Parts: sequence; structure tokens; C-alpha cells
Amino acid sequence: MEKIQVHDYTIFVGNIWPELKLFLETRQFEQTIVLVDDHTATHCLPVFQAALPELSFELIRVPAGEQHKNLNSCQHIWSSLFQLGAGRKAVMINLGGGVIGDMGGFCASTFKRGMSFIQIPTTLLSQVDASVGGKLGIDFLDIKNGIGVFNNPEAVFIDPVFYKTLPARELRSGYAEVIKHSLIHDPAQWESLRQYKKLEDIDWASLLVPSLKIKQHFVEKDPREKGLRKALNFGHTIGHAVEGVALNSDHPLLHGEAIAIGMVCETFLSFLQCQLPQEEVAQISRYLLGIYDHHPIDLRHFDDYLTLMKNDKKNEQGQINFSLLPKAGSVSVNQQCSTAWILQSLQYYNDLATVSVID
Amino acid sequence: MEKIQVHDYTIFVGNIWPELKLFLETRQFEQTIVLVDDHTATHCLPVFQAALPELSFELIRVPAGEQHKNLNSCQHIWSSLFQLGAGRKAVMINLGGGVIGDMGGFCASTFKRGMSFIQIPTTLLSQVDASVGGKLGIDFLDIKNGIGVFNNPEAVFIDPVFYKTLPARELRSGYAEVIKHSLIHDPAQWESLRQYKKLEDIDWASLLVPSLKIKQHFVEKDPREKGLRKALNFGHTIGHAVEGVALNSDHPLLHGEAIAIGMVCETFLSFLQCQLPQEEVAQISRYLLGIYDHHPIDLRHFDDYLTLMKNDKKNEQGQINFSLLPKAGSVSVNQQCSTAWILQSLQYYNDLATVSVID
Repeated sequence: MEKIQVHDYTIFVGNIWPELKLFLETRQFEQTIVLVDDHTATHCLPVFQAALPELSFELIRVPAGEQHKNLNSCQHIWSSLFQLGAGRKAVMINLGGGVIGDMGGFCASTFKRGMSFIQIPTTLLSQVDASVGGKLGIDFLDIKNGIGVFNNPEAVFIDPVFYKTLPARELRSGYAEVIKHSLIHDPAQWESLRQYKKLEDIDWASLLVPSLKIKQHFVEKDPREKGLRKALNFGHTIGHAVEGVALNSDHPLLHGEAIAIGMVCETFLSFLQCQLPQEEVAQISRYLLGIYDHHPIDLRHFDDYLTLMKNDKKNEQGQINFSLLPKAGSVSVNQQCSTAWILQSLQYYNDLATVSVID
Repeated sequence: MEKIQVHDYTIFVGNIWPELKLFLETRQFEQTIVLVDDHTATHCLPVFQAALPELSFELIRVPAGEQHKNLNSCQHIWSSLFQLGAGRKAVMINLGGGVIGDMGGFCASTFKRGMSFIQIPTTLLSQVDASVGGKLGIDFLDIKNGIGVFNNPEAVFIDPVFYKTLPARELRSGYAEVIKHSLIHDPAQWESLRQYKKLEDIDWASLLVPSLKIKQHFVEKDPREKGLRKALNFGHTIGHAVEGVALNSDHPLLHGEAIAIGMVCETFLSFLQCQLPQEEVAQISRYLLGIYDHHPIDLRHFDDYLTLMKNDKKNEQGQINFSLLPKAGSVSVNQQCSTAWILQSLQYYNDLATVSVID
């Protein structure tokens, strides 16, 4: 069991159940409520119940999927909390992926002006991405995380046991954030990640803690995303736009799949803007294309991509802000690139389909 | 101009306009949005515009009244903010009474995970009650402030100029909280309040600052209402129940009118439970009955009152918690009284109608 202390709460990583049991006993919450979605009710709740057979709790269940991360679901969760007679000394355990963690955390943070909540992220993506940083929220009018708050949980419990419940594609999606963390801050981890040719070979327990500590590094220095924290946005300016356009197509991409595309493009922008050495551009592109399928970007819709990039919450005065790599393992925020360069970077990604980048 | 520093923000009291102008110029917000309701659009917005003729701002307007302090209005406010293209560096000015301040503050605190907001409370009640303490929120499923957050504004600007826009009944309602503050913490202010026989005689500007400082005293020591802050609940346990029952009757009471009734009842409970001297019980009751009309409590509905008291957010383990007065100008929290005593206290209030308590 590894522990990471973030501000006033602890992230437990490993076989979490003995620590979770102790935590609940020590804190003596008046009532325990578990929030699940239709997927985690089937795949994760049995694991939870088998590990804590003596825990008595109430269950709130919402439909699964990003399309349900909205005010309707919040109203269902809040109503259920009132019906269950939850007081301020109750605790809500959010058992699920990013949607459950973000939305459950938001509902708990606003129920009676704030009840306690515990995060048990069950996907690799939510474990390495959403478990640090206190970002909570829901989508509003199709704007991702348009409404939300910053607030920290009582604790986060991360256990790779849940990967058994994940499709391989989901696991690969989460891995994109692990790659990103190494690329922006840890040359040694980037070196060791490149040794893995297949995800099945990875020792997750040993990988998670250093990856989480990178996110912690940036979040602790800038909890409200005023500046430095934007570093975590590498690959996300273009990646979010790719994800947004794909969402309305016949072939939606998972978050990490879109971010992998964004990282290839922004690696190329790093070359143009920050003199990232050419051999590192090739190395990064090659590694990403070795893991993620190639999805050509339809450049006839370039304006749609640009519009989405311009809507990014992190922009200032209408300028698109990138976080780019001067070299692998280090990052520069607030980098502005011309529209022509952005187009070139998408073109670069497209061209990789026809060039053998894999050795 | 008086200034009160609370945590990281300032409350300006007096002729606020030069300070507000300077504040907005200094902070250089990217965009200014003013939230009003139908009442304050008519009565307060012209005052605001006349005082700041050069300020350019966008307006969001909602219907007036507690019945609109709900998620529907929030959705209108959030949508308007997105339509106006508000960024995180915009500021929302909430110009109105408690509903506008609570709901506008909640919407700002959750828009894109938090934009800046400034409170300009325009009623005496919202000035002395809602301007300190960071409590924001909306009603949900008929539960007052069921959903909300704790969050502080950038600044609060309080100007008695708005009293000219208030009906006398509204002003009297707000005065109940001024009386409460003196009763729980300031024997000298209580002494001087009793000299005022009519509200028209009151010098508000000199009264507001000491009253606000009493609220500040309790809030700063206990921002999340874990214990001491409950002191501010004097008169509110029974008062909220009286307000709730009246809300569904043909004669709804204003908040302060209900709290005045609650203070009389809880003054009697203070006698039973905390040995408040009998002459002080009479003195407090006499003063309150001199200002507020008598509204007999229908004791056939005693169970309804009890149910509402049991739902109070501040209760613990199902016990009704009162904040009572061992003597005028001092308070004891977490006082539990039997149902029989509670009934007796309502009866005491009712009997005052037939007894001449006024000299």
C-alpha cells in the first residue's frame, strides 16, 4: 500500500480494502451512501461488497455514460440524498469512472452546502487524471464541465483490481494520461515507458504512484489553474477538439485516444515553436502510433476544430494557449501558435498513416 | 465609509459608490455582469446606473421572489453567462436582496468552476444577515437552501440608500436580525436598541457596522457551522418552522417577522432551560411585541411545527438543537428542550396577545 498526501487528503494506492475499512471505522460517518452507474453496479459493486461484507450502505444508481453527466442526473442524486435523510455527517462514496467521480463529487459538494465524499476511481483514466486536483462538475448545454466546483474529497482509494473489469480499449485510453505525465515532467519515466511494447506487460501498481505524483506536483503549485497547472494540458488543446468533433460522428473516440492524437500534433507544434529535437518528435510519434490506432483527421472540417480550440476554458483574450515540450520530460505553458502551424500539425499526424513510423 | 475585513474580502458600508468605482477599476475584470430581479431592476438598478454612469455592463434578470430561488432560475443565469461569453475573469454583481445574493453567488461559484462575484445587498435583511458568512444556495424540493456552497465574494458593498426603495414591512423584517445580533452578543447594543421606539428614528449607518461585526465574530471562528456559529440560530429554530407553516397559509410572514416570533418563544425557552431572568424575558418580549404585530400560532398544527424543527440542518442525531440566552447579550448553543417545553413556549407567545406587555 502506497500513500500520497495531497493538501489535506490522502490517496491510497494498492490493495485498498483494509485501509478503506479502517478509514470508515475511524471517521464514524453517520451514514454511508454509494453512488454507482449501470456499468459499475454490475462490474465494480460486487468487488466492493465482497471486500467489505459488513459495511451497511445505501445505493444511488444513475445511467452510465458522459451523456448522463448533466443536471438531470444531479437532480436524481440530490433527491435521493434527501429521501435517504442524509445529513452533513454522512459520506458519499463515488464508485466509478470519471463521470461518477466528477458528478458525484459535485453533488456531494453542493448537497446542504457540502457533505463528505470519498473517490474510488475504477478506470485507469479516472485514477491518474481525476483523482488529483479537486475538479468536479457536470456538462451543461453541451459544454464539458461547464458547471462545477473545486473541492477535495476526504480520501481517494485506487486499486488496479478494477482493471479486470475494463475493456482493453478503456485501459489503453487511460494510459495516454500516464504517457502525458512522463512527457511533461519525467524523462526517466518516459524512458522506461518506451520499454513496454504491450500494455499487458505493464506493472501498474509500480507505475501509478510516480504518475500521480507528477500530477500532484502541478496541482499543488496551482490549485485553481491560474498558470503552471496548464502544463497538464499538453495534448489536450487539439485533443479536446478532436474528441469534440468525433463525439458527433459515427466513430466517437475515447478521451485518451483523442489525447494521443492531440499529443502527436502538439509534439509537432513543439518542434516548430519550442525547438523540440526532431529525433524526439519521431520517437514520441512512433511510440504513440505503436499503441493507438491511426484515425485520420478530416481537414475539410478544420474550422470546426479551430472553433472548439478557441472555446477552451484556459484561453485568455481569445488566444489559443498550448502547453508544449521544449524537450521530452519538460513543458512550457502559454505557447501561442499560428493557425497555419496548427493546420500543419494536423497534416503531420495524417501523414503518419502512410509513413512507416514503427520500426 | 466604514470597512470591515472578513477573511480575504472587505465589506464597505456607507456611501459605497466611489469605493465600488475604484474597486472595479483596480481589479480590471474582463467583463461586468449585473444580476437583478424584477423588483431591483425597477427600484435599485436606476440608483446603480446613476451612480456609475460610465460603467458598461451586461444585465441578467430573473423573476423576483423566494419561489424563483431554484434550479430553473440557475439554468437561466448559467445559460445567459455562456451566451454572454463570460470567462473566468469576468465578474458578476448581485444587486438585490437575499434571493439574488444567495442564488447569484451560487451560480457564479459554479460557473466554469467559479467566477468572481460582488454582493450589493439592497435590503436591510440581506445586508445584516447574508453579507457575512459565505452561505450561498437555492431551494430544492421545497427545502430552503437545500443545494449550495460556502464561498466568499470579492467584496460586499452596503448602502442604506436602498432603504428608500423598501416597504416599511421589509425594513422591519430585516431589523429582527439586528435585534438578534445584539441579544446574543452585545448587551450595550441591546440597551441602546431599546431606546428606539420607532424604526424611523434609527441611524442605520451607525447601527450596521457593530451589528455586522457580531455576525463576523461568530462566522470567523466557525466558517463551516460546526459549532459556535449556531449561536446565530437564536430565534431561528422555532422561527423557521413558523415561517414554513405560514408560507403555505393565506398569510405568509416575512423572514424577520417569523424570527421575531421565534425569538419570543426561544426567550421563554431560555428562561426554562438557561435560567434567563424573568425580568429580561419580559423586557425582550415587550420590545419585540412593540415592533412586530402579533400572529397567534395555531396549536392544532403543533405536529407540523415539530416536523419542521426536526428537519433543521443544524440538528444532530435527530435531536432539536436550540441556541438560547443565559442572559441578554450572551448565548449557549446545542440546548435541547423537551416537546412539552417547546409547546409551552408557543403557548407563552400566544398568551402575549391577551396580556398587556407593552407599557
